[in-house]
Amino acid sequence: MPLPSRLWLQHFDRAARSGLSLREQLCASLRAHARARRSAVAERLPASRVLAADLGLSRATVEAAYAQLQAEGLLERRHGSGSYLRATPTQATRAAVPGASRPATLSARGQLALRIGGCVDPLTPLPFAAGSPDLRAFPWALWQRLGRRRQGDAPALARYQDPQGLPELRDALAEHLQAARGLAGRPDQLLILTSSQQALQLLASLLLDPGDCVWMEDPGYRGAAACFAAAGARVQPVQVDAEGLCPQADLPPPRLIYLTPAHQYPLGVRLSPARRAQILALARQHGAWVIEDDYDSDFHDAATALPALQTQDPDGRVVYLGTFSKTLMPGLRLAYAQLPDRLMPAALALRSLQDGHSNGWFQALVADFIGGGHYATHLRAMRRLYNARRTLLQQGLAAELPWARVLAPEGCGLQLCVALPQGQGDRLSRAAARAGVVTPGLHSLQKTLDAWLLGFAALTPAEIEGAIARLAPLRP
Amino acid sequence: MPLPSRLWLQHFDRAARSGLSLREQLCASLRAHARARRSAVAERLPASRVLAADLGLSRATVEAAYAQLQAEGLLERRHGSGSYLRATPTQATRAAVPGASRPATLSARGQLALRIGGCVDPLTPLPFAAGSPDLRAFPWALWQRLGRRRQGDAPALARYQDPQGLPELRDALAEHLQAARGLAGRPDQLLILTSSQQALQLLASLLLDPGDCVWMEDPGYRGAAACFAAAGARVQPVQVDAEGLCPQADLPPPRLIYLTPAHQYPLGVRLSPARRAQILALARQHGAWVIEDDYDSDFHDAATALPALQTQDPDGRVVYLGTFSKTLMPGLRLAYAQLPDRLMPAALALRSLQDGHSNGWFQALVADFIGGGHYATHLRAMRRLYNARRTLLQQGLAAELPWARVLAPEGCGLQLCVALPQGQGDRLSRAAARAGVVTPGLHSLQKTLDAWLLGFAALTPAEIEGAIARLAPLRP
Repeated sequence: MPLPSRLWLQHFDRAARSGLSLREQLCASLRAHARARRSAVAERLPASRVLAADLGLSRATVEAAYAQLQAEGLLERRHGSGSYLRATPTQATRAAVPGASRPATLSARGQLALRIGGCVDPLTPLPFAAGSPDLRAFPWALWQRLGRRRQGDAPALARYQDPQGLPELRDALAEHLQAARGLAGRPDQLLILTSSQQALQLLASLLLDPGDCVWMEDPGYRGAAACFAAAGARVQPVQVDAEGLCPQADLPPPRLIYLTPAHQYPLGVRLSPARRAQILALARQHGAWVIEDDYDSDFHDAATALPALQTQDPDGRVVYLGTFSKTLMPGLRLAYAQLPDRLMPAALALRSLQDGHSNGWFQALVADFIGGGHYATHLRAMRRLYNARRTLLQQGLAAELPWARVLAPEGCGLQLCVALPQGQGDRLSRAAARAGVVTPGLHSLQKTLDAWLLGFAALTPAEIEGAIARLAPLRP
Repeated sequence: MPLPSRLWLQHFDRAARSGLSLREQLCASLRAHARARRSAVAERLPASRVLAADLGLSRATVEAAYAQLQAEGLLERRHGSGSYLRATPTQATRAAVPGASRPATLSARGQLALRIGGCVDPLTPLPFAAGSPDLRAFPWALWQRLGRRRQGDAPALARYQDPQGLPELRDALAEHLQAARGLAGRPDQLLILTSSQQALQLLASLLLDPGDCVWMEDPGYRGAAACFAAAGARVQPVQVDAEGLCPQADLPPPRLIYLTPAHQYPLGVRLSPARRAQILALARQHGAWVIEDDYDSDFHDAATALPALQTQDPDGRVVYLGTFSKTLMPGLRLAYAQLPDRLMPAALALRSLQDGHSNGWFQALVADFIGGGHYATHLRAMRRLYNARRTLLQQGLAAELPWARVLAPEGCGLQLCVALPQGQGDRLSRAAARAGVVTPGLHSLQKTLDAWLLGFAALTPAEIEGAIARLAPLRP
């Protein structure tokens, strides 16, 4: 005589506490039972009618569980002999589909993205992985207080949101951008996005047809170059000198010019007033758009920074981008674009088709953070902190790695660009890696550069000094 | 003799408390001063040297503030006469750029998105706007407890994250999907996204070349149709009958078939086992991909639901999509796709180029919510709640609007589809709007349908009854 089901299926009672439906509980119990048997031989199951009666379930529930396990390849129905359970799925029990099978293939866009590759920021701020702010220095207690104050709004903020962004955040941000960057835009010219990368991708779709030419600073920001290339554009490297982007006379006409005027990424130079006028004139002449990626200007010395390039744009062709990834935290997924009025309708349509809108809760918290004056305070504190760390890094490099020449030594921001002795970049980077130090290179479309882009902002003084000490034995 | 600057610029002390930099404070003071004067005539400013001495600032700070106001069009430098401040910007003070100006234009993709238009979900759950879960019934106290328990992880979760999604969330989700939908996928086959819409957009890029044909259920989900059209595809409407998608013999061959097998959106029918086999066979024959959008199956009766279509896919051509927008909250911005292995590398590359990754904090909270068994409990509670509301709505319709015929009356989910008397749809919808009731229509690529899709899940019994009462006077 077979065991009663309750004894045979010992996992069923345990699973009953898990909060699953009865069908799900039964499936989970049967899976656990099969795994616990550790046998490759399938075990015959009780008839569904018997198991249902023994466990006090409806027969429909047991039948549904058996059907699900069958679909998973764990249960086999043998005609005239009943149902058999095994621990691992068999491919053979999956639905057999008659006829020839043609493989489904990737689109040209998909293949292009695969060839270009992704663009992933460093997940942990190891010395000297670039690009991360110091999240240990973030005012978490204040942030949590702001969160508690907003708890009553949580249900409303959990709804679907305006694709353009929470109005409160756009109001607070417009005021901040006017004070900090001289931007006279209205809140309804701001579009809240999840990241600068999303802004670049959206603009690449809106502004570029396949084959169009994009002028990019070289060396420059790989995330932008990859994004334009993935949109089918031809990315034209343009050299950078001490005044910033320096367009040679023989460049192909651009549809778009991508720039980091405040603090060229990665070299750290500032676009000069003369070059600003020249680039805007070229854009007017060619009917080109300009993207001003103001990725880290909030860390600049406000007394000497130039206003944003967009403030000099007479005819609405400059798109201004900023992000909270560097000033607050990358995990937030909040960034913004100030758009010329005529771009907004298409940008909103495409944004809503692409991913709807940004997280409501964090938009509200950032609005409160800015509106309460905490953002300006935080930026000042981080400027001081990062400048001290930058000074420490520069002093350490000068003392221990005199062969590494700091570019833009009066700079600021989250990372430091250093030039290495000619032809030594690869060897020194490998030696640094063996010493346990990450030394990100520069991204150039044209050549291998002997240089490092060292991220220091997220590192404590001890971490900076420790990493310098590990690099000190390196010799060019 | 002019007034000392401290008296003249009365706003400066006030602004000093605001936490801005000195340059920003001075700019803000000068703007406020100009506005307070309420005069269209520009006022001459003290020389920067004088103002700096009077206010105890460096001259560089004052010069930087003047430069910024100049860029904003608020300050005019008159040669030999000094600087003049006005309350409103003048266009003329913006940089004049010589030469002809050619306008920058939208790309073909941008124009297409503009023609297609956006796809925005209802921001507030008015009766009977469709698609929102009940956020008032969400277990907020539990959610906040989970948040407090994670506070120590906040700095790590605020970093850049894995583009594929937080491993903890993928682990918890893989287990849930196996129990609930019979999906045998591994956590590394899951991709965490911000929304189903983002999944559709990503897949449209990866799987469709311009001109490719996509089979869509008709009536169907407009967000998907718009997304495929924006990618340049031809969207082929396919009729739906009582067994679900019903492909006629003369359809053009598809590159992609988009389906809602568990609960056809919007009609509510379930794709029959025979039709499942037929569609998979057609996909194999044509080398087509299949998207299974399982948007609301978590609200179905688990004992009678069929396993996901992907469980029957023998050769990795079915992509499975699900979302937390309906089961938890739309504002989270979290959804997921289970991908065939060979699609993951391209999907990850494109996702990282498009918007990097999803919010780390909410991924962790959802992982805890699932792992702690709260998700299964919540789904059961919402199933009960929504089924009771659906029953109430059906009873109200039967009693007060007998001319509105409920389709799929044994259904479930968040909305109810009702057929209206032939040719009366527009007039009845306008009358409902005048009575203050939203009655979303169905989206068809071919014809105007006389039907409503009534969202009831987010409405209390009183709200449902009130809206029915407002509709009761309508006559076909």
